[in-house]
Formats: sequence, C-alpha cells, structure tokens
Amino acid sequence: MRALQYRAVGTPPEVVEVETPVPGPGQVLLRVTAAGVCHSDQFIMDLPEDQYIYGLPLTLGHEGAGVVESWGDGVKGLTVGEPMLVYGPWGCGRCYTCAQGKENYCEVAAELEIRPPGLGAPGAMAEYLLIDDPRHLVPLGDLDPVASVSLTDAGLTPYHAIKQSLPTLVPGSTAVVIGVGGLGHVAIQILRTLTASTIIALDQSEPKLDLALEVGADHAFVPGEDAERQIRALTGGRGATAVFDFVGAPATTAFASQVVSVGGEIAIVGVGVGTVDVGFFSTPWDAAARAPYWGSRSELMEVVQLARAGKISVEVETFSLSDAPVAYERLRAGTIRGRAVIVPEQQEPGR
Amino acid sequence: MRALQYRAVGTPPEVVEVETPVPGPGQVLLRVTAAGVCHSDQFIMDLPEDQYIYGLPLTLGHEGAGVVESWGDGVKGLTVGEPMLVYGPWGCGRCYTCAQGKENYCEVAAELEIRPPGLGAPGAMAEYLLIDDPRHLVPLGDLDPVASVSLTDAGLTPYHAIKQSLPTLVPGSTAVVIGVGGLGHVAIQILRTLTASTIIALDQSEPKLDLALEVGADHAFVPGEDAERQIRALTGGRGATAVFDFVGAPATTAFASQVVSVGGEIAIVGVGVGTVDVGFFSTPWDAAARAPYWGSRSELMEVVQLARAGKISVEVETFSLSDAPVAYERLRAGTIRGRAVIVPEQQEPGR
Amino acid sequence: MRALQYRAVGTPPEVVEVETPVPGPGQVLLRVTAAGVCHSDQFIMDLPEDQYIYGLPLTLGHEGAGVVESWGDGVKGLTVGEPMLVYGPWGCGRCYTCAQGKENYCEVAAELEIRPPGLGAPGAMAEYLLIDDPRHLVPLGDLDPVASVSLTDAGLTPYHAIKQSLPTLVPGSTAVVIGVGGLGHVAIQILRTLTASTIIALDQSEPKLDLALEVGADHAFVPGEDAERQIRALTGGRGATAVFDFVGAPATTAFASQVVSVGGEIAIVGVGVGTVDVGFFSTPWDAAARAPYWGSRSELMEVVQLARAGKISVEVETFSLSDAPVAYERLRAGTIRGRAVIVPEQQEPGR
Amino acid sequence: MRALQYRAVGTPPEVVEVETPVPGPGQVLLRVTAAGVCHSDQFIMDLPEDQYIYGLPLTLGHEGAGVVESWGDGVKGLTVGEPMLVYGPWGCGRCYTCAQGKENYCEVAAELEIRPPGLGAPGAMAEYLLIDDPRHLVPLGDLDPVASVSLTDAGLTPYHAIKQSLPTLVPGSTAVVIGVGGLGHVAIQILRTLTASTIIALDQSEPKLDLALEVGADHAFVPGEDAERQIRALTGGRGATAVFDFVGAPATTAFASQVVSVGGEIAIVGVGVGTVDVGFFSTPWDAAARAPYWGSRSELMEVVQLARAGKISVEVETFSLSDAPVAYERLRAGTIRGRAVIVPEQQEPGR
Repeated sequence: MRALQYRAVGTPPEVVEVETPVPGPGQVLLRVTAAGVCHSDQFIMDLPEDQYIYGLPLTLGHEGAGVVESWGDGVKGLTVGEPMLVYGPWGCGRCYTCAQGKENYCEVAAELEIRPPGLGAPGAMAEYLLIDDPRHLVPLGDLDPVASVSLTDAGLTPYHAIKQSLPTLVPGSTAVVIGVGGLGHVAIQILRTLTASTIIALDQSEPKLDLALEVGADHAFVPGEDAERQIRALTGGRGATAVFDFVGAPATTAFASQVVSVGGEIAIVGVGVGTVDVGFFSTPWDAAARAPYWGSRSELMEVVQLARAGKISVEVETFSLSDAPVAYERLRAGTIRGRAVIVPEQQEPGR
Repeated sequence: MRALQYRAVGTPPEVVEVETPVPGPGQVLLRVTAAGVCHSDQFIMDLPEDQYIYGLPLTLGHEGAGVVESWGDGVKGLTVGEPMLVYGPWGCGRCYTCAQGKENYCEVAAELEIRPPGLGAPGAMAEYLLIDDPRHLVPLGDLDPVASVSLTDAGLTPYHAIKQSLPTLVPGSTAVVIGVGGLGHVAIQILRTLTASTIIALDQSEPKLDLALEVGADHAFVPGEDAERQIRALTGGRGATAVFDFVGAPATTAFASQVVSVGGEIAIVGVGVGTVDVGFFSTPWDAAARAPYWGSRSELMEVVQLARAGKISVEVETFSLSDAPVAYERLRAGTIRGRAVIVPEQQEPGR
Repeated sequence: MRALQYRAVGTPPEVVEVETPVPGPGQVLLRVTAAGVCHSDQFIMDLPEDQYIYGLPLTLGHEGAGVVESWGDGVKGLTVGEPMLVYGPWGCGRCYTCAQGKENYCEVAAELEIRPPGLGAPGAMAEYLLIDDPRHLVPLGDLDPVASVSLTDAGLTPYHAIKQSLPTLVPGSTAVVIGVGGLGHVAIQILRTLTASTIIALDQSEPKLDLALEVGADHAFVPGEDAERQIRALTGGRGATAVFDFVGAPATTAFASQVVSVGGEIAIVGVGVGTVDVGFFSTPWDAAARAPYWGSRSELMEVVQLARAGKISVEVETFSLSDAPVAYERLRAGTIRGRAVIVPEQQEPGR
Repeated sequence: MRALQYRAVGTPPEVVEVETPVPGPGQVLLRVTAAGVCHSDQFIMDLPEDQYIYGLPLTLGHEGAGVVESWGDGVKGLTVGEPMLVYGPWGCGRCYTCAQGKENYCEVAAELEIRPPGLGAPGAMAEYLLIDDPRHLVPLGDLDPVASVSLTDAGLTPYHAIKQSLPTLVPGSTAVVIGVGGLGHVAIQILRTLTASTIIALDQSEPKLDLALEVGADHAFVPGEDAERQIRALTGGRGATAVFDFVGAPATTAFASQVVSVGGEIAIVGVGVGTVDVGFFSTPWDAAARAPYWGSRSELMEVVQLARAGKISVEVETFSLSDAPVAYERLRAGTIRGRAVIVPEQQEPGR
C-alpha cells in the first residue's frame, strides 16, 4: 500500500510503497478514508536528530478515519465496512488513569513504548491503518469522514481543555481564545454551544478574526498594546474567567497571565515554550494554570455528538495521498484555511 | 477441575467436576486463590424458575482472586503467578459509559449478553476462572487474597455509593449506615477514613452494633421508635446528610426518608423492594435518592489502595471448596461473622 | 400606599390602602416597578384554613422588581433610583447554608420566622416593598423590569434545578421538560444555551408545544401512551439523562420514573403530590430524584446574566395594580400566555 | 482600652491606650479573648514605606476570638457573652463572589476600601474588637478560644487550599506538604482526616519533622538533593498528586514543579516570591498551579467542625497583651513552637 512517510531527519515526507499490515490477535485493520494534517507533525519533523524520538521511517497521521476492513482473533462486535474515527492517544488500557478512559495521561505508555499512530506507531496517512485495540475506535455513523476526521485532535484537544473549565464558565463569565487556527476556531464553537460566556478571540490575522466572529466569538481583535485594557473594559475590570492559549508562545502565555481574573483558569494548549509563572506576586489569587494534552475516550465521543448535533464543524481543504507533501508545504507557508485533510481514495489530479 | 455449581432451581449448590477452561484470544486464566460468598448468590438461588435468568448450571462466585495461570493470543504484559483481584461487573469496554471505566453501568451488556462471573458467566468458586479481558484484573500485590477478595464487592459497592456523596460529607455532616453486615461494616471504615462526619450505625443485632463501634462508628443503636428522635438530637435537628441503606427493605427506606436532611442524599445499596418516595410533600427539599450498583474499575483500584494503606479490612471466615455448600447454609442461618470466603486450595478437613 | 392583599381564607385578593413602610436599620425600601403573578400564590390561597400558614392579611408577590427609594441606618453603597431585582427566598444569612448564599435552604428560617416577601412577609404587589437586607437586591442594570421580574422565580427555579444536572448533560445526552408553562419555557431556553443535549418537551396543550419548539426544544409532543416509546426511540433505547418535571403530579412523576436512564436525574420542580419512588426494582440503577426549591443568590445573578446576554426571556402580559385581581382570575382560567406581571405605575384603563 | 499598634514604619509595635470603639448600626463589638500572631503581620511591618498600604496607626491581629459585648441598631439574633470566632477576609457581602461566601475573593473590596481587621481595619490585639457585620462571626460553642483562635487563619488557609484538591486526593494518591509551621502542621492533620493519601512532609528543621510525624505525616525529611528521588520512589515514579507549599520561596516552588505528577496540583500558600512556571516543557501535562488566599465563610465553619470533632488542633503559646511585642520578637527569632496567641485578659506577670 502507499503511505506518507517521514524517512530521514530534515527531509520532507514522501509517499512510498510499504507492506499492507495484517491485524494480529486483538487488532483491527481500517481502510483509511481521511487523515488530518497537523502542526505537530511539522513540529516533530523540524526537531534536530538528537531530539527526534518517534522512530524512522514514520508513517504520519495522528488524526485518522476509516472503515473496518478486517480484524484479528479475539475481536468481537465489529462489522466490515463500519465507519470509524480513531482515538489517537493510545494508552495501556489498564492503569488507574486508563481505567477512567484518560489514556492521554496513561501512566505507563512511555515505559511500555506505546505510541499514538503517526507519532511513533504507523499513522493514518496510508491506505490502511492498524489499530491496536477496538476500544480505540469510535463509531462515526453517517457523519462525513473527511469533514469529521479532525474532530479526533482539532476537536478533542480544545474540548478537553474547555471541559475542565466549564464549572467556572457560568453566565456572566468571559472566555478568551488566543489563536484562531485549526483548534481555536473549534474552541469558539464549543464555548458558544456549552456556555453563555462572553467570548473574546485574539489573533494577528484579520481573516482569522473574521472567522472567529463567524463561528461565534462576541469580540475579536489583534492582541496589541491595548488588548489588556480592552479585556478589562469588557469584563468590568475583572479580567477573563478562562484563557485558552492555542499558541503557547512566551508572548501569549504572558498575556494570559495579565488578563486572567482572580480565581480564573489558564489552559496552555498550543505546544510552545511559553510559561505562565504562577505565584502570589505574578498571577491573581487562585488563578490556576495548566497545560492539558489531547483528551479522553469519552470526551472524543462527546465531541462526535457535538458534530452530530450540528454544533461544531471543522473547515477542511482536501488533498490526495500523492499530494500530501504539498499539503505540508502549504501548512508551513500558512496558506491552509482551517485544516488540511488527506483523502487516500481521492482521484489524483490528471489521472 | 472442581467447581461449585447451582444446577437446578430450588436445589442447593454442589461441588462437581467440570472441564478446566482454556483461555482463547484476549482471555486470561486464573488459578483461584479465594472466592467470596455473598447474599446476592443466595438471592438468585431463591428466585422461582420464571424469574431466574442466570443460566444453568451456574458456577457461583462473583468475588474472585487468583494468580495468573495462562492467557490467549493477543494478551500482553502479564506474568505467570501474578496475584490479581477480579473486577466483576463486566461491560463491553467500548460504549460511552465503559469508556469511563463505569462498566457496572454498561449500556449494552444486557443486549450483548455480557454477564459477571458467578452471575451468568462461570464464577470464582472453582479451581480456575476464565477472565474475558485483562482489563478486568487489578493487581493485588502483596495483599493476602483471602482477606482481600471481598474488596471486589463488599468493598467496592459501599465505596461507590459513598464516593458519590463525598462532596456533601463535609466536616460537621452526619452519615447514617443502616445494616452492619458485610458491606455496612466496610462502609463505616470508608467513611471514617475519608470524612470527618459523625457516623451513626443502625442494626437490629447487638453484636453488629458492637462491630460498628469497633470499626469507627460514633454512635450505634437499634432502629426502634426512638431512632429518628435520636438522630435529630445528634444533628441539631437537621437530620442526616447522607444515609446508606444496606438493607433496602420498606422499613429501612422509609426510615431513610424520615431522617435525611434538606439537600441530603440517600443511597439504597441493599437489594430489596423498599423505595424512597421522593416528592415535595414526602422528602425534604433537594434531598436526593438513588440505588447505585457495584462500582467502576478505577474505584476498585482505589479500594485496593485503601486496604494497602491499612484503612479498611474485611472480617473473613474461610471454607474449603468442598465445604462451600456449608458456607451457604451458614450464611442462610445468619451465623457467618463478616464474610465467608472459599479457599480452593485449603486442606480439606480430615484429608 | 395601595397593595394587593389576601385578607381572608377563601376570598379573592383585593386592592387596599395600607401604610407605606419605613425602612429600619439595615433595611431598604423599593418603589415597586413590577411584580410577577405565580401559580404558587394561587396554591396558597386555595389552602384550607388549617393548612394556611402565611399570615393574614398577606400582601402578595414573591417576584419583585423596583428602584431604591430609601434605606435605614447602616446601609451602604446604594443609590436612590437604582433598579433592582429582589432575591425572594430570604434566609438568616449566617447559618452554614446561607454562608454559601443558598438562603433557599436556610437551616433556621422557619425557626426564626423569616419568610419570603409575598409568602409571609409583605410582598411586591404594592407601590412600595420593604427589603430586610441589601444583600437580597440584585442590580438590574438597563434590563426592563417588567420583562425581567419573573427571572426571580420563573427564571431562577428552573436554573437551579438544571444547574445541578449540568455535569451529566454532556453532548449526546437528552433532557426532558414536562410542562411548558412559565417555568418550563424558560427551562428550555436555559438548556438550549448551556448544553448540547437533545431537548424533548411534553405538554397537554398544542400551543404550548409550539412555544416549546419556538424557544428551542428539538421535539415536543403530548405525553400520551406512546410517549415513552418515542423517548426510547430518540435516545437509542437509553432513556432521558435528565427529566425536569414542572407539573409534579402523580402522572408526571410516574412518567419521569419510566423514561429516566441509568444514572440519570429527575428534578421534581412543580409543586404537587407526585412522587418518584426510587428503588432497585422501580427506577434504573443510580438514577437520582430530588425536589429542589427556588435557587441561590449567586444563581439569580447568573440568571440575570443570561437575560443580559439575550439568551433567555420570559413572555409577559401586564396588568395595573387595580387589575391585579383580574390577573389571578385569568391565571386560574388558564388564559395567561407566559407570565402575568403587575405594574403598579401602569395607567389604569380609563383614568 | 489597650491595643497593640504598629505606629510608624520600621518601628516595633507597641501597646497603647486608645478609644474603646462603639458599634454603629449593623456592627458588633466583641470583648477579645484571644488574638493570633502571624508571620504576615511581620511581613507587612517589614515593608518599606512606599509599599506599606495598611494605614497607620494599625491595631494588629487578623486572627481573633471574643465574646459578644454589644451591638448597634439592626443587629438581631446575638446574645451578650456568646463566644465567637472572627472570619477575617471581609468582603462587600453583595458581589457575585461574596454571594457564595467567598469574601476572600470579593470583587470590590479593594475599590470600596474594605480591609480585614488587623490588615487595614483595627485588629484583634486589643481589649475590644469592632466587627462590621454579624455575618463575620462564627459561633465557637464550648471550644477554648485560645486554642481555637488560629483556626481562623492557620486552620482556614490550609483547609481552603486542600479542599480544592480533595477530588484528586483519592486513595493511592500522595500529598506533599512543604513547611511544617503554623499552617503546615494543621495541613497535615486535615489531610490525615479527609484523605487516605500518603502524606510526605518536608522541612529544614528536625523538630518540625518530628512534629509532622506526630500529627500524621507518613514520611518526613529535609528537602535535600535526594528529596525528588525519594518522592519518586515513594510514588512508584509518578510524583505527588498535590503539593502544598507553605513557604512559597523560589526554591520550594521550583521543587514543587519537579515533584508534581501528571494531572497533579500545586497550591502556593506561603507568601513569597517563588513561582511555578507552568508550560509544556516545564511542568507535567495537566498539572495545575494556583496561589489561593485565606478561605470562605462556610469553610471556616467546616474548620471549626473539624476542631469540634477533635480532628485538628493548633499548638499554641500564650502571651499577655503587654507582652505582645515580645511575642513578635520571639516569632522573628524563630523560637515560637506552633502559634503565639495574645490573651488580653491574661494576668500580666508580676501584677
């Protein structure tokens, strides 16, 4: 089968022919219908050799959708052709944390060398994808796999971050979303659906501010010098009840620290080197900061329900598997609107 | 192998020779080290034929401990001889509820005919026990299996009920435990460990009231005419913040309704026909009642940690497998102190 | 000043001239701008003499809005003319429950004879209303008092009931609202704003089913024989995650028991003699029932924020103070659409 | 009356004669029975003139106990001679946060210049203390005021910090307490009472490590180079579920960042310049940090209940009001064991 692989540190990913995997006992084989292109793929391909820990060659793709093709011994309850989304942050399934479905925080995954597909295990940018256990599949029903595949990360990650703060996001509260990209524009939709909070979106790009307003933000502006003053004005001086930082750079985490309210919450979601320095003289009383990661199994199911109810959607631009390298070039150039999705079965242009 | 089976409705269980099971793909075989005797076994053996739905012959035992003997294809991470407790309320592992480890409330278990060991599937009162999936095993470590086996039900069930009420069991609150049997005497220990609540135990039997005081109750008395007045006196008139009814009979659920406070909580844990009739003119404002069932996977792990920390223990009396029928006779006669435990490897008397 | 008083058991309320109250130390006097007409007023006026405990004569009106007129010694921070809503379920302010603002469940109000305005203390259906403490005032800002006055009960009561169930009302869940009257039609709006749940409304009246769909219900139908089957069909067989019963009659509470899901929640909000009989053989596992009452101080503030954000509104029909008796007649006849509101300053017809 | 006042920046506090206050409308006068000496008094007296914002002269003492002496107009429900504890973090009582009793986070206290007694308003180190509102009094019952006065800060502050983390402090979890002083030694008792967590105490002083073990710590050691390794060893490598830092210095907050587990929580309670720098590459996934402040009204009531149940106690050393300056000298010298308490009525030595 064909697969998009990162084959040598510092080189672009390429489409190659590899063995089609065969499911062993307890495993499931999906025929891939869609695979999402994510900044974090770019992030790991930019790592220098001494920091790159994901194995080579690496078939990319940690956002995956497919239909059940076959399975190994001991698997029950599946139907050939059933459409599925892939829960990506695989854990051991047995530790205390996994026993609650929070496999994204598995206590022993690193030790047992359990890695997500596309981030260590072979990923979804291929014609077929091997799933280690049927519990990592979430039925997609009649949702479109191409439009839905990014729910598995661009949907799940902001959902997980927001869900932790829902008890504080009471009517009258204010949520600030920093960065209106793939994750941020879904975050706004989730906040609009599950809270009555005032939603303020910040981004450097005017088109993204327009997108923010389109999908439900109450206010959207460039985080210039005046932004803190504007947020104070919009909140009666109190500041933001919750800040979701989808950038994670030093400038954005510092800004989050400045605008969060007493008792507020900051979630650093964007992978960056920024930090929120929590302390008596640096952040308001009882304001909490954390850096959550991806989401739990049941949370992915809730995200799928949000999509099914028509409450959230992800803007996507599709590419054939052959054109997957182009998608990464476009991502790096910043010219993707929403999310790029690889569709293995898509007709190649000119074929 | 030998197994204790309920073979015909209305007859006592008997020890018979059956095939030793062989683990298929994804399954695990345990050599049983201990199996708990529970009132609910008695309950189902007392059912008339038209209500009995657990299959015949039925190997009894839904509280099980054992050591790993072997496993089928696709199982990883186990070691032969590793001591384990069995999580009993098996679910599908994949529905929304199971995805949080709450397999006790699996949405499709009935439909898929997934039954707990000893309550449909072959149980632990045998030399070997087949486990459908390694996720249903919780490492026992160096805890004694005989002393610990009842944590899987007599520990887990009250823990699950109490955990839901912990946020209301603040310092200054009052918890009432009705029935100081196998579950009730563990409930008192859990409450003593995790709350500063005043604990009031009620039972018809003086020795059980003594046991209640031994394991941590602040007050213990027979639920006579005066009991409501006593509870009002002990709570400044407010009533009980939480009532855990391990009997579930009409008299006890009615009593629970009378003594619960405004905003309090009633958990009906004992399987009986009693009901709490919630309404504006029958229960205090915002007092909630529920009938929880067993517990979740992560809760069983928490219960094991309570035992490991020396905070809870179950009183046990042991029987060999040959003497298992005697244990059930003694249970019915009410002469078991604490919990009866079958130990398959125990020397038969006089052999 | 003029006031609408219930003066003798069994007689209709009448407008009479009474002394205008003077605020003592710590008290505030409001000039009333609006007062809501509620079924519970009718309920208490229908009580026989031996059950009537609210004092005579009783100035009606437990939903009140007004502007600050004056205050007694020791009151700080108010401005003459400031528009306010009245938090009705007055408590002592000092007990453990009141210390959390949950004055609706005050532990000593009965003992200290502290009664809500209109339900023991003189109510809002008068030109002026005496408030025992400024903490019972919530600033109304630029919201219209006539449109907003019913937030204090018809808004707050369903909000309080729903807020307790929000953690279970995850995406994919189902909320059932029984009774689409003054409270029910606000409940639907709150659920639509704060959850992605499927909302099912039930009512005997077709116009009210239309109203339910207008304000955000996904499905609305008459609770006939088929209703349980319809709810099972809409929930994949699971039943309702939460049921809010704004009727509270035996038929509706029985229906709630039938349709609630495992682990679901029932709130009996309508004052009636219906009960939910919770037990192992009568309600699903872990389904909880409660009868909450009114709401807390901070919840009223959250409700006001919902209105300010344009998320909820109450349909109202206005009456002058002179016509207040007519409003009660119309209420009894069932010809009020939404909520009747008394506006003391409204021009009397023909004067 | 006599009062201990801080009268000029940089000078020691002195006992002076001042007017005995007279309660105005809504106010209460207490005859002081005990007042606690706190490090934060020392902290503000050490501030340079340009940072000192508490007013001069300042009667010290934010931990107070007394008996009701008299009250102003509009106060109800008090009895002369009734023993009370003083809730210190006074707020407005009316904002959204105060409406939940969380006056410690009042939204407008700074703007309205509402200050705690001893930290702006006249404090408890005097023969009489003026209370702005009876809601700031918590009945002491038959508890000894001298032994109990420090519950108002040294009890309440750790309780508030711990209560937020209780849901994560499940059986099997680990709590680390840094600093076993006035607050830390109470924190250990609270953790011992309300959790089954393994409690690890860290302090530079051997006698304080002994105290930690006495009051319930499972392990206690000096936070040397090896401390992180020891904590990893005690937690199976996972690290601490919750860290309570009662020092707040850069070294301790850095240490907290190192030992906290994935999903763990850090509370910086000690007032210092240390920060926990939360970020993807600096703290474990989803580990949260916050700097809480004092506690809520209902939490103080819960703390009093813990003391009443005999679950917590504060070690105290008493001083007469004349000797109060000596107490502060001893505090600075580090020779107070537990908490120093001023007892105004204590016989002066040699009089």
